[in-house]
Amino acid sequence: MVYQRVSFTDIDLYGDFWEKRQDINRETTIYSVRDRFEETGRFRAFDMIPPEQGGVKPHYFWDSDVAKWIESVAYIIEKHPDPELEQKVESLIDKIEAHQGEDGYFNIYFTVVEPQNRFKNRDAHELYCAGHLIEAAVAWAQATGREKFLDLMKKYVDYIIQVFVIEKSAAFSTPGHEEIELALYKLYQYTGERRYLDLAIHFINTRGAIESERDLYNQSHCPVREQKTAEGHSVRACYLYTAMADLAAETGDAELRKACETLFDNIYRKRCYITGGIGSSYQGEAFTIDYDLPNAEAYAETCAAISLAFFAGRMQRISPNPAYADIIERVMYNGMLSGVSLNGKEFFYENPLEIDHARRHRNVSVHDSEHYAPARRQEVFSCSCCPPNITRFIASIADYQYTYDQDAVYVHQYMSGVANFDLYGTSVKISQKTNYPISGDVDIVVKNMKGKTLAVRIPFWSKNFTLYLDGGKSDKEIKDGYVYINIKSDMMSLTLRFDMNPRVMYSDPHNTSDAARVSLCRGPLVYCMESCDNAQPLRSLRLLLPLEVEEFYNQELDCIQISARSLISEAPQGNSSLYYSDPVTRSVTSEWIPYYAFANREECDMLVWCSYNEQ
Amino acid sequence: MVYQRVSFTDIDLYGDFWEKRQDINRETTIYSVRDRFEETGRFRAFDMIPPEQGGVKPHYFWDSDVAKWIESVAYIIEKHPDPELEQKVESLIDKIEAHQGEDGYFNIYFTVVEPQNRFKNRDAHELYCAGHLIEAAVAWAQATGREKFLDLMKKYVDYIIQVFVIEKSAAFSTPGHEEIELALYKLYQYTGERRYLDLAIHFINTRGAIESERDLYNQSHCPVREQKTAEGHSVRACYLYTAMADLAAETGDAELRKACETLFDNIYRKRCYITGGIGSSYQGEAFTIDYDLPNAEAYAETCAAISLAFFAGRMQRISPNPAYADIIERVMYNGMLSGVSLNGKEFFYENPLEIDHARRHRNVSVHDSEHYAPARRQEVFSCSCCPPNITRFIASIADYQYTYDQDAVYVHQYMSGVANFDLYGTSVKISQKTNYPISGDVDIVVKNMKGKTLAVRIPFWSKNFTLYLDGGKSDKEIKDGYVYINIKSDMMSLTLRFDMNPRVMYSDPHNTSDAARVSLCRGPLVYCMESCDNAQPLRSLRLLLPLEVEEFYNQELDCIQISARSLISEAPQGNSSLYYSDPVTRSVTSEWIPYYAFANREECDMLVWCSYNEQ
Repeated sequence: MVYQRVSFTDIDLYGDFWEKRQDINRETTIYSVRDRFEETGRFRAFDMIPPEQGGVKPHYFWDSDVAKWIESVAYIIEKHPDPELEQKVESLIDKIEAHQGEDGYFNIYFTVVEPQNRFKNRDAHELYCAGHLIEAAVAWAQATGREKFLDLMKKYVDYIIQVFVIEKSAAFSTPGHEEIELALYKLYQYTGERRYLDLAIHFINTRGAIESERDLYNQSHCPVREQKTAEGHSVRACYLYTAMADLAAETGDAELRKACETLFDNIYRKRCYITGGIGSSYQGEAFTIDYDLPNAEAYAETCAAISLAFFAGRMQRISPNPAYADIIERVMYNGMLSGVSLNGKEFFYENPLEIDHARRHRNVSVHDSEHYAPARRQEVFSCSCCPPNITRFIASIADYQYTYDQDAVYVHQYMSGVANFDLYGTSVKISQKTNYPISGDVDIVVKNMKGKTLAVRIPFWSKNFTLYLDGGKSDKEIKDGYVYINIKSDMMSLTLRFDMNPRVMYSDPHNTSDAARVSLCRGPLVYCMESCDNAQPLRSLRLLLPLEVEEFYNQELDCIQISARSLISEAPQGNSSLYYSDPVTRSVTSEWIPYYAFANREECDMLVWCSYNEQ
Repeated sequence: MVYQRVSFTDIDLYGDFWEKRQDINRETTIYSVRDRFEETGRFRAFDMIPPEQGGVKPHYFWDSDVAKWIESVAYIIEKHPDPELEQKVESLIDKIEAHQGEDGYFNIYFTVVEPQNRFKNRDAHELYCAGHLIEAAVAWAQATGREKFLDLMKKYVDYIIQVFVIEKSAAFSTPGHEEIELALYKLYQYTGERRYLDLAIHFINTRGAIESERDLYNQSHCPVREQKTAEGHSVRACYLYTAMADLAAETGDAELRKACETLFDNIYRKRCYITGGIGSSYQGEAFTIDYDLPNAEAYAETCAAISLAFFAGRMQRISPNPAYADIIERVMYNGMLSGVSLNGKEFFYENPLEIDHARRHRNVSVHDSEHYAPARRQEVFSCSCCPPNITRFIASIADYQYTYDQDAVYVHQYMSGVANFDLYGTSVKISQKTNYPISGDVDIVVKNMKGKTLAVRIPFWSKNFTLYLDGGKSDKEIKDGYVYINIKSDMMSLTLRFDMNPRVMYSDPHNTSDAARVSLCRGPLVYCMESCDNAQPLRSLRLLLPLEVEEFYNQELDCIQISARSLISEAPQGNSSLYYSDPVTRSVTSEWIPYYAFANREECDMLVWCSYNEQ
């Protein structure tokens, strides 16, 4: 059985948290990224003027940066026409058309800088760039109905089939950076043309099967169906797993499905930050080992969190395991959202769960330094993959709200807005009205689903909940994370009340970074402390349990701030040593803001996982 | 006012902790180091046969390794004649005599490998090696009365004076690795010849004064009297500070004394592990910044702890600040003693305060790895400075027990044994009988001190104590860390009862590595947990406060083991996520052994600083 998802194109979000973010994304971020790309020569590079003739020298991943920006524009103009952006994309498409090879090949770097090395270097991101261009072309065709870009990319894919499947004339067999596999599946979905699906299957099945190309870093260490743990570069990994899940859902390949489930389970249970961040080491931007989730040294690339949401979203097409929606929610509200500043203009590439400036500066007296993420967001990066990944993800975030099959519609995420979609021949409308995640109250109205089932997710974090059906309290029970409601009338109203009391979360004791610590959360939001709100060294605070908290609205950050009673033990008066017994322990209030909102004021220390003391 | 210290040569330790360690040092360690040095060619190198003629190629610090071993033998044979070792040393002295240059120069490496580069490379340890040879020569003359070695080294020093003071013909002005300064002061003390003191003063005063030689790493960043914080390579730093303190005590140089006090204070309050370890970073084996004392990544070289004890010991000649005895005690019982295995054969170069094997193996999926100390002691190192530093330190450890001036004798350390020494013309005898640090009871008998004062140190860690004078309980109060007792008879007996109840120690909250954690201590011993005694991940344990403990004798490790009630919070039954609320919290017993005894069984995790929960 395969579930379909309601496309974001069939959903309008308004009246809450995500409408605000989409407004900023559309009004500020997409333009800011455009300007930075303009400044850094990424657009001009599409003129393909060699550096020696005055052109810019492109990086070999610039096609993908621009492609993700085009894809983002496509998603934005689906809902809000914008002739300026549309014109910019069309001009880029014209340039792609003008400079595409006669054989269909298109790549800025390898056309301008190393034309003799086409498809010779597995690590040079050629197929990765192709994948992003394909995704952009599909999105553009979907948004505008104009298929020129799509046709150019179809021609390119035919060339790739020629080189990689028919001639096998490339110096490698599978991409060094996965991405094209999931793009080919999108191309297949849009066109219905089987050869794109076949090429995706070819790349997936060939991966790890060739001795000479075995490499843990890019998930080629063994055939994909034999992979049990998430390894190597985390974005590559989840782009691969996303495509594997696509194919498992599409083809019913049970072995592939099992591999996807095993890999997801490994990430979910052992290799994922509470924020949804993955890839804990900056070395290789990679997964490391089970339970290795350092906080200050966390890498947790924004793109990696997004790629994990992709993977989990595709897994929802296979089954409504509530872990999938749980991980997507973590990413949406924490590990992805921290990647962009509140003003929409600056970005984190890395998303640490702790910033300790003293620790960062430890090596002043010697030469080297350890790696720590920047403590401030930046406008653009030399490798600027994250900003356009954020713009496309936020623009299409409603993709994660609903899935359905013949019998039921699943509500995975709570976002204010209206979905109108075709449920196997019936025009269904589902409206959500909520101030989630500020409030845990969600009013849902369902039209034209009589005889079907609505399955509403009860998040793990909601210790209790109340459900009203047409105004009457219901005592329906949770079954595998969802409450299943039979829709008995053409229009039915439901109200869900989730428990939004601040709570603490614990981590498996094997995760030594968080052992004997707790994280303060409220609804789907992970909270953190910043030193600009807290006078004491953050690590010296012990959160008092059971929690004694007050909540208030922080206008500057537009969020609920939490004040929590805490303890601190300090040196007694007159102490002159670094170490002492008989400390003075006193009660202080620790101040907490949502993790996604950190680093939006002055640069300061930050902490997610806090020591605690049970009374 | 300058205090003298009672030389270890005037003290016999027996009947307790240190007698055992000195026995192992004399019977096993000194021989084991000898055998390793024999195997690695360190002794053969003194034959000065060039590698191309079949000789060994020496490292440029080998002279110092062998010199410290000779110095250790000298200290050992002061108390226990050993013809075998004595003969070995004499044969080495013969070789030194045979190969010393006509001008007095002696260095294995620069004679055999780079004769053209004598005194051209400041970083090549030439003066450092000279310093250790001088220390050895003085010790050998003291122990045997035979001065051949001393005369050879005096000739060498005359040559050094010629090169560095008179001709100024060396390529540098001050040693890249300090050591010779303190050695010259020893030479001056032994011979009374002023030119050795002058050369020490010359090196100290020149250091940091020459623009082109400024270097933080070796404490040449500014003139020594202007140095306020302990910087750079920590062993170099404390060898320098030791000499500075020697000269301040000798010459009454108030500015130098002030610099010493400021530097000691910086280390004591901000840059020292609770074990007495210093130099928290492996990068440059260096001090870093205030309060930067990471546990798992601690460097804390054994030699550095020893060098800090040297520095503190010299400061005791200036004043009886109890912080000096406190730091020496930390080093003796913790950061130095952890450097050698219980069997006396293996050594730690680095002394971490936490071992977490999972964390160590984090980077299995990528190429690089972070630096962590070995989790097992080794028999010898390519840079094997620590083993012979331990042998000389343990053999002469009684050096730290007493200081005196005209009026008073200070008892700084409690070690079972007898001191017989000349107190400005009177033969004084002080006996201590104690099972310290197993027991906190110390019986002291003082002879021939009528009219003088005995000042006994009350360690900071002893929350209360009882003093009996000739059997009667005394209510004398502590004054600056010591109780001052007027000796009113020719023979007087004292009993001290210190509080040996296990206690927890806190660290300044700015030390983020230890914030919201405690260390369990008993008397002068810092304790730790090892995973071979504790089933739960060590970091997940929370020590319950107030402490609920039981003590028992651990025969295998010959120590008092402490069982302490602790809490652990684990995932509830059926949980399938890495993160969860509502943990199951249960009480467990955590098992603690002295820090010095860790890593003497199977290789396992270890933790000093533990989370806690106040009831």
